[in-house]
This record gives sequence, C-alpha cells and structure tokens, in this order.
Amino acid sequence: MRRVKSISGKSPGRRPGRHNTKAIIVAAAQTLFATSGYDRTSLRHIAKLADVDPALIAHYFGTKQKLFVESMLPLYEGPKLLPDVLKGDSQFIGERLAGLFVMMTGDPQRLKLVTGMMRSISSEQQAADIAREFMQQSIMRIVEAYVPGPNKKLQANLVASQLMGVFMTRYIMKVEPLASATTEELVAYLAPRLQAHFEPLK
Amino acid sequence: MRRVKSISGKSPGRRPGRHNTKAIIVAAAQTLFATSGYDRTSLRHIAKLADVDPALIAHYFGTKQKLFVESMLPLYEGPKLLPDVLKGDSQFIGERLAGLFVMMTGDPQRLKLVTGMMRSISSEQQAADIAREFMQQSIMRIVEAYVPGPNKKLQANLVASQLMGVFMTRYIMKVEPLASATTEELVAYLAPRLQAHFEPLK
Repeated sequence: MRRVKSISGKSPGRRPGRHNTKAIIVAAAQTLFATSGYDRTSLRHIAKLADVDPALIAHYFGTKQKLFVESMLPLYEGPKLLPDVLKGDSQFIGERLAGLFVMMTGDPQRLKLVTGMMRSISSEQQAADIAREFMQQSIMRIVEAYVPGPNKKLQANLVASQLMGVFMTRYIMKVEPLASATTEELVAYLAPRLQAHFEPLK
Repeated sequence: MRRVKSISGKSPGRRPGRHNTKAIIVAAAQTLFATSGYDRTSLRHIAKLADVDPALIAHYFGTKQKLFVESMLPLYEGPKLLPDVLKGDSQFIGERLAGLFVMMTGDPQRLKLVTGMMRSISSEQQAADIAREFMQQSIMRIVEAYVPGPNKKLQANLVASQLMGVFMTRYIMKVEPLASATTEELVAYLAPRLQAHFEPLK
C-alpha cells in the first residue's frame, strides 16, 4: 500500500523524525527564497517559518548557500531528463525540448521555484553565481553534445538563452500573447525555434 | 560649430538653466534606478543625488513612474532603428538584428541602463508592468509585421525572448563562453538563430 503524505511531509501515524524535519526546513526555504529572494532570506527566517531552532538548520545543511542548492533540487529534474530528450530522433529535438519546458513550468510548485530563482538571479550576485554554476555543470555539458559546431559551448548557451528568455517573457514580464498562450500553442511555436538551434549553421 | 557638453549636461559658458537641471535629474535617476532598482529608488533619493529640491522633480516629471520612463529614453533608440533593421533584405534580418543588439549593449552607459532595467523587471512588479507596456507598444508592433504567421504576435514574442535571454545569460548570469564572447562571435552565432524566427514555420 502506498503511504499517503500530508503537506508537511509527515506520514500519518508516524512521529516526526529527522527526515521530516529536513523536509519541513526545505519547504520553508523554498517558500522564502521564492518570495523574498536569496539575499533577503536568512537562516533565522527559515527557522522561524519551519518552527525549528536555527542551529538545527546549520547542523543539517551547513550554510545558506547549501540549503539554497538543496531547496532547488526539484529543478534538477529537468537536466536529469535532458539526455533522453536530446538523444532521440534529431528532427524532433525542438519539440521534445519545448515539451520539457512545458512540463517543468506546468507544476505550480516548481514554477514558483523557478520564478523565485529567476528573480534572485537578476537582482543578487550570489544567486546568479550559484545558478551559473548549475547551468554550466548540469545543463550546458549535456546540450553541447547535440548542437552543431565549431563552438558548441556557445551554441548551447544560446539554446539556454532562448528558454530562459521565454520564461522571463511569459512568467515574469507577462508579455502578451505569450503569457496567455496555451501549452499547445507554446509548443507549436517554440519547437521550430528551438529546433533551429540544433541544425547546421548556414 | 558643435557645442561640447560636459558630463553634467551643461554647455560651457552657459548658466545652468531649466534644460540642464532636467538633464541632471535624469542622470541621477538613471544611476539610482540602475544600481538600486525601481522600488528602492525614491524621488527623495534622486533629488539628493541631483542636488535639487524634490518638489522640482515632481514639478518637471510628475510621478516616479514618469521619471523612470524618461530615464529609460536612451533605450528607445533600439526600437527606433528596428524598422530599418527589419525592412531590408529578408535573408539577413538575423544578422542586422544581432548587430542592433550588439550596438545597444556596446555602449557602457546604455548597458548599465538595460542591466538595471532587467534587474528591476525581475524583482519588481511595477517595473515589469512598465517594461511590458514598452515592449508591447514599441517593439512587438514593429516586429510582428516581419515574422511568419498565423500568430505573428506570438512569433514576435519569441524573437524578443531570444534577445532578452541572451542579455540575461551574457550580462546578468555571465554564463561562459557567452559572457566572454567577442561581438563578432556573438553576431556569427546569434544571427542564424534570430534569422530562423523570420523564416516560415515547418
């Protein structure tokens, strides 16, 4: 039988243990990073929202930076799926990549995380540094194997730029009609534009 | 003979007049909006940096929002050039558009303005609203005449997304190798990707 979890991450009939406390801290961190940004969120704020002692957060996660990385883990699901998205029929990479974008932004919890991260990236140097590291290590390295040369790293940067730009335009600036486009419309229009990134340079 | 202007906007041998005071206020506003963002910049801060009475700013510009729009005027140069960039030989639209991007970001003063605006857009709703209005009215309306249909507005959004994403990746996140690419490399790689936006959907 599958265990049902409550929002707080506690399984019914089970006393809160180490695992649950960590999950509650991560959930509190996600909420605060997403709404207040990286700079304005302190371990003390997170401790207050999670109703735990700040020392416990330091014990479990070490630094705020490490907790930030941990709280962004749901975003790693995208890069984890990237190899499968890229390695299929090369004529439809754009379509599959657009589908992955829609999947990553379709879940409200994950969308809140990405939005919060984008806001932090734009206004805070430390968050930008963490995100850049993540992008260079987890995304670019995978994408660069599939784009045309000679400078595959630069090409991969441009793929990421297109996706990041669509995120900004649709979810942060809310430019119309992109902001209100259905996921079907988005995939139909974005896919060929993404596909172009994987075709030989003219 | 051309008049030479000093940094403060004053012409030599001329007493500061209404025009110069306005220019000094705008320069102060540009500096503060770019470094502190829209929310955290007040008319009082601007008045202090410009060394004028806050009431004078209200008299000249009305609201902070109007002063913000005024201080972003150098960014209108891009949209003003857009019709010429788009209407030439359609095979080279991507190249000319990449060139316009390089021109707009090559001037340090303008780059500071765009960076400040992007930071404000990402973290502050009011700045995002102003920028969206600007984008929809001044940029999208021009671009949408040149992209393939049926939803030309959505296509135009994607062109803007690509450029905004490149700006974010190169100047805000500083992802490599895009951040260190020369303008020649940038144009060579970005142009074909932009060009794809103006070619028929497959």
